[in-house]
This record gives sequence, C-alpha cells and structure tokens, in this order.
Amino acid sequence: MFNIRTDLAVEAKELWQETAEKQTQLEGVIARDSEKNGYKITTVEITNEKGEQAIGKPVGTYVTIEIDKLINREDNAFMLGAETVAEVITSMLKLNVGDSVLVVGLGNEAITPDAVGPKTARNTMVTRHLVEKIPEHFGTMRRVSVVQSGVLGTTGIETADFIRAVVDKLRPDAVIVVDALASRKMARICRTVQLADTGIIPGSGVGNSRAAINKETLGVPVLAIGVPTVVDAATLAADLASEAGVHNLEPEDLSKHGTSMIVTPKDIDANVADLGKLLGYGINLALHGEITVEDINMFLS
Amino acid sequence: MFNIRTDLAVEAKELWQETAEKQTQLEGVIARDSEKNGYKITTVEITNEKGEQAIGKPVGTYVTIEIDKLINREDNAFMLGAETVAEVITSMLKLNVGDSVLVVGLGNEAITPDAVGPKTARNTMVTRHLVEKIPEHFGTMRRVSVVQSGVLGTTGIETADFIRAVVDKLRPDAVIVVDALASRKMARICRTVQLADTGIIPGSGVGNSRAAINKETLGVPVLAIGVPTVVDAATLAADLASEAGVHNLEPEDLSKHGTSMIVTPKDIDANVADLGKLLGYGINLALHGEITVEDINMFLS
Amino acid sequence: MFNIRTDLAVEAKELWQETAEKQTQLEGVIARDSEKNGYKITTVEITNEKGEQAIGKPVGTYVTIEIDKLINREDNAFMLGAETVAEVITSMLKLNVGDSVLVVGLGNEAITPDAVGPKTARNTMVTRHLVEKIPEHFGTMRRVSVVQSGVLGTTGIETADFIRAVVDKLRPDAVIVVDALASRKMARICRTVQLADTGIIPGSGVGNSRAAINKETLGVPVLAIGVPTVVDAATLAADLASEAGVHNLEPEDLSKHGTSMIVTPKDIDANVADLGKLLGYGINLALHGEITVEDINMFLS
Amino acid sequence: MFNIRTDLAVEAKELWQETAEKQTQLEGVIARDSEKNGYKITTVEITNEKGEQAIGKPVGTYVTIEIDKLINREDNAFMLGAETVAEVITSMLKLNVGDSVLVVGLGNEAITPDAVGPKTARNTMVTRHLVEKIPEHFGTMRRVSVVQSGVLGTTGIETADFIRAVVDKLRPDAVIVVDALASRKMARICRTVQLADTGIIPGSGVGNSRAAINKETLGVPVLAIGVPTVVDAATLAADLASEAGVHNLEPEDLSKHGTSMIVTPKDIDANVADLGKLLGYGINLALHGEITVEDINMFLS
Repeated sequence: MFNIRTDLAVEAKELWQETAEKQTQLEGVIARDSEKNGYKITTVEITNEKGEQAIGKPVGTYVTIEIDKLINREDNAFMLGAETVAEVITSMLKLNVGDSVLVVGLGNEAITPDAVGPKTARNTMVTRHLVEKIPEHFGTMRRVSVVQSGVLGTTGIETADFIRAVVDKLRPDAVIVVDALASRKMARICRTVQLADTGIIPGSGVGNSRAAINKETLGVPVLAIGVPTVVDAATLAADLASEAGVHNLEPEDLSKHGTSMIVTPKDIDANVADLGKLLGYGINLALHGEITVEDINMFLS
Repeated sequence: MFNIRTDLAVEAKELWQETAEKQTQLEGVIARDSEKNGYKITTVEITNEKGEQAIGKPVGTYVTIEIDKLINREDNAFMLGAETVAEVITSMLKLNVGDSVLVVGLGNEAITPDAVGPKTARNTMVTRHLVEKIPEHFGTMRRVSVVQSGVLGTTGIETADFIRAVVDKLRPDAVIVVDALASRKMARICRTVQLADTGIIPGSGVGNSRAAINKETLGVPVLAIGVPTVVDAATLAADLASEAGVHNLEPEDLSKHGTSMIVTPKDIDANVADLGKLLGYGINLALHGEITVEDINMFLS
Repeated sequence: MFNIRTDLAVEAKELWQETAEKQTQLEGVIARDSEKNGYKITTVEITNEKGEQAIGKPVGTYVTIEIDKLINREDNAFMLGAETVAEVITSMLKLNVGDSVLVVGLGNEAITPDAVGPKTARNTMVTRHLVEKIPEHFGTMRRVSVVQSGVLGTTGIETADFIRAVVDKLRPDAVIVVDALASRKMARICRTVQLADTGIIPGSGVGNSRAAINKETLGVPVLAIGVPTVVDAATLAADLASEAGVHNLEPEDLSKHGTSMIVTPKDIDANVADLGKLLGYGINLALHGEITVEDINMFLS
Repeated sequence: MFNIRTDLAVEAKELWQETAEKQTQLEGVIARDSEKNGYKITTVEITNEKGEQAIGKPVGTYVTIEIDKLINREDNAFMLGAETVAEVITSMLKLNVGDSVLVVGLGNEAITPDAVGPKTARNTMVTRHLVEKIPEHFGTMRRVSVVQSGVLGTTGIETADFIRAVVDKLRPDAVIVVDALASRKMARICRTVQLADTGIIPGSGVGNSRAAINKETLGVPVLAIGVPTVVDAATLAADLASEAGVHNLEPEDLSKHGTSMIVTPKDIDANVADLGKLLGYGINLALHGEITVEDINMFLS
C-alpha cells in the first residue's frame, strides 16, 4: 500500500487516480459531487476492503465541503455554510429526540494550526447540565457535553484513553470529534471540511486499533469532522517540483530537511478562528432542531 | 452551625475564637505554628466530629503556608517557597517509589482569579508517557499525568464525575487537586497556600457527598492545594464595617448588592501567574526526588 | 471640594444631591433624561465653574447610556445598542465628509477590568491605509487609525505624551479615546456607558493639565467614551455600611485594608468582551455612514 | 541585482558565493568568524557600494549569533546566550552613562511567527518612568521606554511613521528595533540572531527610503535585531529540489502556489517565546551594566 500522506479521502482518491498505471476503475470506491446552499460537496464512499487498500482509509462515508464561498466573503456565506455543515451532520449521524451527544475538540490550542478542535469546542453550546437542571427552559434541547482532550505531551494520557474514560462515564448516544488534518495540496488548506462516519485515528494510519476513536472502540456512533490546516514541508516540495516538471523527487529525499517543518497560511490565526466558528455553529444547528444563528450568538456571548 | 464563608481552616478557626462566647477550649481541633525555610506554617488538625462542627470542615489535616516572603521578593524566595511547598506535600502524601500521580487543575482559566488550578497544571511536569515510552531516560521519575477539569458551564459535566472518569481509567496511586479558594480576609488573598489531606468539595460546604473529590469517592488519597484569590463583596463590607466599630452588619443584609461581585487585587493576573508557578514547581520537586528548579525550567521550556 | 471617587458625571451629581444640606438647586448643571431605541439616556451638562466645582468634572456635556437592555439579552439589543452609541457619538462629535479620526484604546489589556479600551480598539475598523491605497474601494469611508496606548508601567511613556506624539504626526480631525472607569455604585458596573466631549484625564481629578487628553492639549476635538468596570473596595464598604444604616464610616478609615483591592463582577471577562464589541461597532457605525452591522462583521473577521 | 529573498546578510553572502560564476573575491564585503561563550558568531561587514549591490543590503555591520547551544538546552545556555547577545549589543551600540533608549517590538503578536518583536518587548525592563520618578532607587539605570508598533493592518499607520512620532516626542539617544525575519534556509529558522547597525526596512528591500527605520530617518543610532522564523514556501521548494539535484526550478515558477504560504517549525510557539526571552534579557544586560539574570527575573515578574 503506498503512503498517501493526506487525511482527506477525496485527496487520497485523486492521488490514486493520478498515478499513471491506475487509470482503470477504482473498485470499492464510489464518488459523487453535489451542491448545497451554493457549497460544493463531494461524497466518497469506501465500500469494501479493496477500496480501503486503494485509498488507505477505513470503509465508510467521507463527505467534503469546499468552503471557498465563505473565504470569499460572499453574502450570507457564514449562515449558509453553517447550515450546510448542519445538514451534512444530520444526514450522517442519525439521532433520536432526547439523544445526548459528546463533542470532543482534539488538538493543542496553543499551536495555532492545531487549534481547530479547541476553537470548535468553544463555539459549541454546552447544554447537558442546563437540560437536566432547568428542564422547563432547556428541556427541548439535546444534552450536549463538550471536552477538550488536550494532547499527550500536556496530559500524559493517550487521547483515545481519555475519550473512552469520559464516554464510559457519560454514556452519550453519539460522539462528534473535531480535529485539524494534514492535506497534500496547499489549495485545500483551510478551504475544505471533511466529515467521516468512520471516526478518527489521531496521528492517523490504518491499523493502530488501540488509538482509534470510532464506533468499535467507543460503542456509540462517532462522527469525525476535520479541516486540513497544514501541508508537510517535504511533501509540498516534492509536489511543487513535480508540477514544475521534475518528477523524480520523493518526499523521503527531502524529509531530513522538512521533518519538523510545516507549511501553513500566513493568516492561519484568522482562518482557524473562522473555522472553529463555522463548525461549532454547524454542530449547534444540527443538534438543536429549532434554533437560529441569532439564538446561538445570544447563548454563546 | 454558623456559616463560615471561608475555604481556609485556619481562618474558620480564628472566626470561631473571635466570637465572644467561645473563648473556651475548642475541642476536636489542634493547631500549631512552625517555620520552614523562613516561611511561616500553621497546621490545623480536626480530629473528631466536634471539631468538624465547630470549624465547618471535615476531619483531617490542614496546613497553611504564608507566602509574604515570596510576595516581598526576598532573596531566593521562589526556590525556598517551592521547596517548602514540596516538603509539605511530601509529608502529607505518602508515596512509594514508582507510584503514579494524577494532578488536576480545577477552575476556569478564562476567569483570572479562578485560574490558579489551570496555571499550576501548566507548570507541572507531565511524565507518564515519557516514563512508559522512554524508560531509559525517564525511568527514575514518577509517572505524572495532568488534566484540567474545566467547569460545568464549559463542559456540561460535573467536575467530580469528570475526575472519577479519569481516575477509573488511569488508576493513579494518588491525586493532587489544585483550586482557587475564597477567603474572608483581604490580607490572606494571594498570600496563603492551604494543603489539606481531606480532598475538596468544589463549591464547598460539608455534606454534598456526590460532589466530593476525596479518598472516599476516588478510592485513592487526595491532596487538595488551594489559594484564596477572592473575598465575597458582602462579607468584606461587613468585616470592614466591624473593624471600624460597626458590629451589627450581617453579610446577609448586604448580599443583595454584592451577590455576584468579588473583591480581588488589582494585579490579580501577576499574582495568579506567580502562584501557578510556585505550586507547579512545588509539586514537581515533591514528586521527583532528585530534580532541581533548574531541571524544571529546562523541562518546561 | 469633596472627593467624589467616581468617573461618572451622572453619579457625581447624584452624590451631590444625596448630601443632606444640598437639597437646593444645583447651579451650573443641567440634567435631562431621554430614551433612544429603548435605551435610557441621561445627559448632564456642566455649564460653568460653579457646576464644575459641585460635580468635580470640567465644563462640558456628559451623556450616559444605560445598557441593561443589552445585558438582559433582549431581542436585537446588540444592534440597537450599537446604533444608540453611534447616534450619541454623531451628535457629540461633529464630523465633515472626509475627516479623519484617531481612535485610542487606553488601559492594560492584560488586566481584565482595564481592557475595555484595547477590546474596543480590536473591534474598530482600521481604514486609513485602505482609503489612501485603494480609494476605488474604500474612498467613501472616513480614514480611521487605531492605537493602543499601553500603560506607563509597560512603556515608560506617559499616555498623554504618547497620544500627543501620534496626533502631531497623523494630524487627525478628531480623537476618540476609550477607557475603563471607576464607579461608586456596584449597580452601574459594566451597565453604563459615558460619552463626554471634555476628553479624559487618565488617573482622573481636575487640575493635572499635563496629563489631560482633550481639545486643549491635542488641538482637535476629543470624545471620551468610558465604562465603569470596578468599584474601589473601601468606597464600596462605606457605601454598603451606609445603606445598612451606619453612616459614620469614611472610606479613608477603610482604605488601609482596601487600598489595592477592587470590586468587580465575577464574569468580568465576558462583560468586557461584550462592551468592547458594543463600543467598537458603535464607533464604526458613527464614522462610516452607510454601513451595517453585517458589513462590520465581514470587515473585522 | 538578483533577488535574494533573505533578510540575513550572512545568508545573502553564501548565496552569492554558491552561484557558480562568482567564485572570485567578493569586493566590499568582509566576513569573519569568532566565538563567544560557546556561541558561534559571524560578522559580515559591507564596506562600500559594490558590497551593497552584491549582497543586497546597505553598508554596515551585520553580526549573526548561532543559538544551537540554547536550542540543545546545554548547561547555562540561556544565561550565556543572553550575555552573548548583550556583549554584541554593547559592541555595536556605543552608549554613554545616562543615555536613554527606545526599544521597539515590530510585528503582529497575534501571528505567532511574527511575534518575536512583541515578545521581546514584554521581556524588556521599562525603566524610563522609574528613573525619573524614583531616582534614589533607579537612578543608576538607563532610561528605557518600550513600544510595540503594531502593524499597518491593525493601526492604519505606517510603522516608520509611528516610530518617528515617538522618537520625535521622546528624543532617545538610541533606538533598538526587534523584528521577525525571513530566511532562505530551514536550518536557520529560529536558530540564528542577526544584529545590524543599519536599522531595518520593514518589508525589506533596498531603496524604499520612506519606510526605513535607521539613523538617517530617525536622527539617532538604530540597532536592528532580528530572528528568522519563516521561509517562503516557494523558495523552500526550489531549494529542496535543488538539493535533490533539480536545478532548473525558479521560485517564480512556484510562487503562484506558495504565495501566501509560509514554512515554519511545528513548535513555533515555544521557539518564539524562548527567543523573546533571550533577546529581552540580552537587551536588559546590555543597557544596565550591573544587573544579573536573577535581577531581571525579579523585575519582570
């Protein structure tokens, strides 16, 4: 299996197809494009083990929303974007009235490109205690609890262990995990949201089942939401060289130089703030049927 | 039982004694003063239910360190202060070689006077993963993991539930919880550290056993470390009036005005930063026998 | 002249009237109440030296907006509040088309109750460079530049000197300074906005002309916008005691205890964030005729 | 003149020499290596217009300190590093007893790789007001004032205009400006400090005299201290390709992809915090003869 170096299924699929000898049909993978509220959406379904091997991602559904509309500041782009995220969440995570949800922000808030999870957590309405203590006011909302997992270096605890501990105690009906991802293409950085019903393996790679945060390990459905915020520097160099007609560069040749370096937009701080708000509002709209963006503003301020 | 409005045992004892009709011996309470490294230390032991009722705190040992020396920036005050904290921790929390410890920072980092716990967490060396993964380097250290519990409003999860979830998963040999406290006297604000082997009840009061974070609820010894950072505004007013010769003011009369107001030093930001460092370094020195302040600087930077 | 211990003209006037022997007419002071967009507004005009002496503030117009509506989260309260602030600014600061304005955020961003100025600065649209470099897009806007003055302890420079230096270089047509204030009553903390055409004397008091930031020292009209965020602890104690029927307490008696202590709301962080947004948006609406709250959202994000 | 894409004189010189046809002597440029306190130091002097054209930097002295020792956390590395910075400052900026100095932190604190200037400002002892108001205590120190210039987008004011305004008002005897730089090589990122007696042109390039912050424009000696924290993504790609044997890649070919992307270390937050402390302490040691690192700790905390 070739090493795909991307957390995005849509990108992994593209890379597979770009490889010269693989122009044939890709078995076990179904892709389709659509549009919601002016946002372009791509759905990649990996249906069997063949697809899994080709793409390097587990069987499941991966939905990608391109958010150029938001970045270009088109009219109503934020509200339409949040609604689009909400609609995709609703379609992927089948919830019943009264279900409770745990939202987990993965990543290190102190490292800007890694702060998408924490920023989303801050924009998510925490309602569990309110529904239980003031049911006359909040009784129609779903019970939502929110944790930030921290990272191994700041806690000493494996992220998956931490989340399992909280899930075992709270017994939510579903879990939503939000994380920053790595992409292979600069053009996708901070411009793409991926939602996957397969959960997530922090640090990625198929196989490390102990670290997986998914239905198998947690016992409840897990929706993973991610945004690519960085490209690995060595990967980028190889790709740029390739576009310039130089095809014999391997990321491995370069990794000694780029190993701890990342490529990220100059205005990553503003991007991550925007993304955390988009995802938080999308989650809120999806989980609490009747509310509006204005209600969320009021609740969070 | 009269309402003591303080989280400090030493203060509760003083208040009991100040009451005119209680100049008799206080049963079930033993107090003694001492000094370590130039720091004044007061130990209050509550030995039975009579003491418990008089003071309004559970049976156990409460050690208070007065840190004026540090605030006055005397020579070597920080190093001596951290060592003093470490010595008190060592005497109160009997640990064996190889024991693991969970350090919990309680409170809301975004509210400055409530950020003592989170700031201490940031100054605590996280070693659990290092000891397990790189034993050749870190094998002689204790395994320390660190979590910040957040607060109910930002997580939807009761603090005690959250900590129990983590303790059930990690099974540490001891827990240290660090929190900001309320005092009755302005003179103690940010100038006193209390260590108690009784654990802590966030929001305080005896009796609410569900919320307690102690040996009974967690199954392992719990050392609570706290620093008073606020006085309740109404309590303060009554006390100040009393000092000026006006004794008929009850905090209750004033609480309608002061209910959501706190009294805190102007430079609370700097104070809380200092305190978080003092407590974190004290914990590090106590848990890892051989290390120095300089080693900690290196590790944390 | 008795020491009024408040930065609010409306409060100083009340205090004057509360004093038993002063139930007579207050000369040199005109006060009137009104309402805009559901917000209560009080205008105090100090018209001559007699009023100046009675109130302890320089001759000029002081407009107070009570923002309970916003704090109670009534419908559209933010938009209406920002428009109210804008209307008052427009009526007090007569600007011509093409005029340029310097907005100065006073105070220390690291000390939460002192961060109203810096937070407002962050919510103010900076347009000076855009109008000059991209006139085809921004030519219809006023040129607005924004500085945060820092505080003496972090710069070594007197605030007034700093602002004069910038004004001498930029030569704006008007200056708006925003600062946190002290009030005498807890009920006004974070609930009142004062706008004054007299400028401001950081650290306050009449007479210290060297430190004044006003038309006289800067050579252009200066509008001061302030919000009380703290009460002096000793003043509070005397007031609370007085309300409880104890009238012989002087703040001076208590100041040895309360000297470096402040009284502030528990949720001061959220309050200051809200206020910075309200004032910034109000300034933006006042300075750039045609824009909407939505336009400002877009510009600032 | 070929476009050098680096703010480091030492790097520009290397690049000149690497070019095949320029193996001859470089006129107008003198370089020498030395060592201080275990730190490697390279001094590049550009002595005339020929050197200026070859290197693309104005005539003057550029000293580079390599701080690997600090990054590797060798014993006493911080103290020795701060002393090394101080010694270089002292040798480049001839100050008399009683001289006053303005320290300017350039850059945007909210963008991590651009925050070296602001972080240094926070670690610089502000003494101007203390020397003037409490001469009996601080009279032997130099008067140091500190400003952060902000950036055009957050102030609407050109950095050079802002600094000139402050210099005209304060009339310091010398100015030290601190800024983040761009390098061409990843190996230098966060590992090199450059000190130049030529001042600085924010945004760089020779010729834009209006924007220059130097002796000519300010009227007093200007020492510029900078640390490279980013590589331009397109430049990096071309360099990496070149090292892999592909020499026909021009940054220009790639810039359409990398234009707003930067390459920076994963742990840039920690790096910038370290660098701000190193430079601030170096400046403090240089400006106030007798003090120690311990004194600075005490003063700043």
